[in-house]
Amino acid sequence: MTEQAISTSPRTTPAQATAEADLVARVVASFDNTPDPRLRRVMQSLVGHLHAFVRDVRLTEAEWNAAIEFLTACGAITDDKRQEFILLSDVLGASMLTVAVNNQAYEGATEATVFGPFFLDAAPQIPLGADIAGGAAGEPCWVEGTVTNTDGNPVAGARVEVWEADEDGRYDVQYPDGRIHGRARLYTDDDGTFRFWGLTPTPYPIPDDGPVGKLLAAVSRSPMRAAHLHFMVAAEHLRTLVTHIFVADDPQLAVGDSVFGVKDSLVKTFARQAPGTPTPDGRALGERSWSRVRFDIVLAPAVI
Amino acid sequence: MTEQAISTSPRTTPAQATAEADLVARVVASFDNTPDPRLRRVMQSLVGHLHAFVRDVRLTEAEWNAAIEFLTACGAITDDKRQEFILLSDVLGASMLTVAVNNQAYEGATEATVFGPFFLDAAPQIPLGADIAGGAAGEPCWVEGTVTNTDGNPVAGARVEVWEADEDGRYDVQYPDGRIHGRARLYTDDDGTFRFWGLTPTPYPIPDDGPVGKLLAAVSRSPMRAAHLHFMVAAEHLRTLVTHIFVADDPQLAVGDSVFGVKDSLVKTFARQAPGTPTPDGRALGERSWSRVRFDIVLAPAVI
Ligand SMILES: [Fe+2]
Ligand SMILES: [Fe+2]
Repeated sequence: MTEQAISTSPRTTPAQATAEADLVARVVASFDNTPDPRLRRVMQSLVGHLHAFVRDVRLTEAEWNAAIEFLTACGAITDDKRQEFILLSDVLGASMLTVAVNNQAYEGATEATVFGPFFLDAAPQIPLGADIAGGAAGEPCWVEGTVTNTDGNPVAGARVEVWEADEDGRYDVQYPDGRIHGRARLYTDDDGTFRFWGLTPTPYPIPDDGPVGKLLAAVSRSPMRAAHLHFMVAAEHLRTLVTHIFVADDPQLAVGDSVFGVKDSLVKTFARQAPGTPTPDGRALGERSWSRVRFDIVLAPAVI
Repeated sequence: MTEQAISTSPRTTPAQATAEADLVARVVASFDNTPDPRLRRVMQSLVGHLHAFVRDVRLTEAEWNAAIEFLTACGAITDDKRQEFILLSDVLGASMLTVAVNNQAYEGATEATVFGPFFLDAAPQIPLGADIAGGAAGEPCWVEGTVTNTDGNPVAGARVEVWEADEDGRYDVQYPDGRIHGRARLYTDDDGTFRFWGLTPTPYPIPDDGPVGKLLAAVSRSPMRAAHLHFMVAAEHLRTLVTHIFVADDPQLAVGDSVFGVKDSLVKTFARQAPGTPTPDGRALGERSWSRVRFDIVLAPAVI
């Protein structure tokens, strides 16, 4: 932190500014003996930025109390199934920024976005072309694409994990009955292609009945996530990609995604198909409409 | 945050820096419609500093996970009697900085320090000269002084709240049996003086069996607080003072106070008295040693 970055109130005397700067220096110095140099750097940077924030806004004691109460409420609602601190990081953009910092765009490779809290390692493995819905309600959606490396070569046998909410905006793990639906693991073909039936994504709110939801309401922000389908794609010698695809005509894209996950390159056209339109694999959908989308994935090298 | 304050890793490309700055701007802008301008300012500053921290240290995904786990553990150990988030704020110096920001030194007035988590509104009221120990173990300590305003005029009837740990380093509220000891409320005499028997303060650790204690261990910091006696002094038209006095010969002063509460002006000589030395009020202490200290308190005007 540079001193110039601190906006002190007009009432702050030079003696006061010195006393505050001295305190910051003492706190930073208290971490000098940290054996792990990386932990030392992280803590000293954290303290520097935290103190700059307190000084910048001239945090009142009532606001400090409110912050303690807010964190306490986040702790109280957090359990095995609910993670309010991740939600907090998400709505403050810290999750997305961490993704950005660790997944520097690689020329030509598909961009990453937030992982989210709803991945499950135990998703069922399905053959190419099968249905991931597993009983989840929603409009069928044909998803197809390729996995290649940045040289354009197809990646055979890449592991493709996909997961999404049902048409009520809920993931299987949000139901109390232990069901597993709307998720699967599949592997690309010898020519690097994949295909499966999923559901046309719909917008859903992040859990907003807790302190983070209250915060969003207080700042007039929507808790809704833009409609999306999650992907995690892994293959040997290539950087594992965690990403989503978003729905081009989703009105929530204009409102804003509550966790800042949208990137233009990840917005895809989900082409709506009238009932009776023949399906790519001949699946009979009767009177139901369906959609289709193409997502060609390019994986960066593992080490850049 | 100025862009200059961000130290990006040498591998960060200009495109990457732009992408990160764009994300920060998007998150800051998401608070633009906050109805309360103060909340808007606080949240936008918080986001700016939080993102600067993540970018500054190039936070890894493993470190982000560790941070989420740390906050979750703080939440899990926090209850009606244990407040790990306050401890965290304390050891990061954020509590003391908030005190500093809100209690700008007023020429000639006694300096403030942290409130701490152990104040109790229900302390017994005692007459001047009485004993606050209430059965708490420790060496008796005669405490006397005056309360004046910055013009040097005595303040009659000022409310003086005092509280301290026993010789085992524990406050009454840290025992499970609901006892009340080592705390009292008294009022200054017509001439602005006060006097009472307390205990010679001893160093004690902040509760260090939780995540904050683990953090202090990882950074090789002592959990000990320098020995101190708490004061909160209030009188009409004067600024309420929350402070401590510290013990001049306490070796912990050199090691450092774990919550950064020490100010030179608050370090007082606790004069040790051999057994048998006559006491100021004639109290018979038999074979026990005792100490005495003087603390003259100057209250700033309520509005500066
Ligand atoms: Fe999601
Ligand atoms: Fe204390």
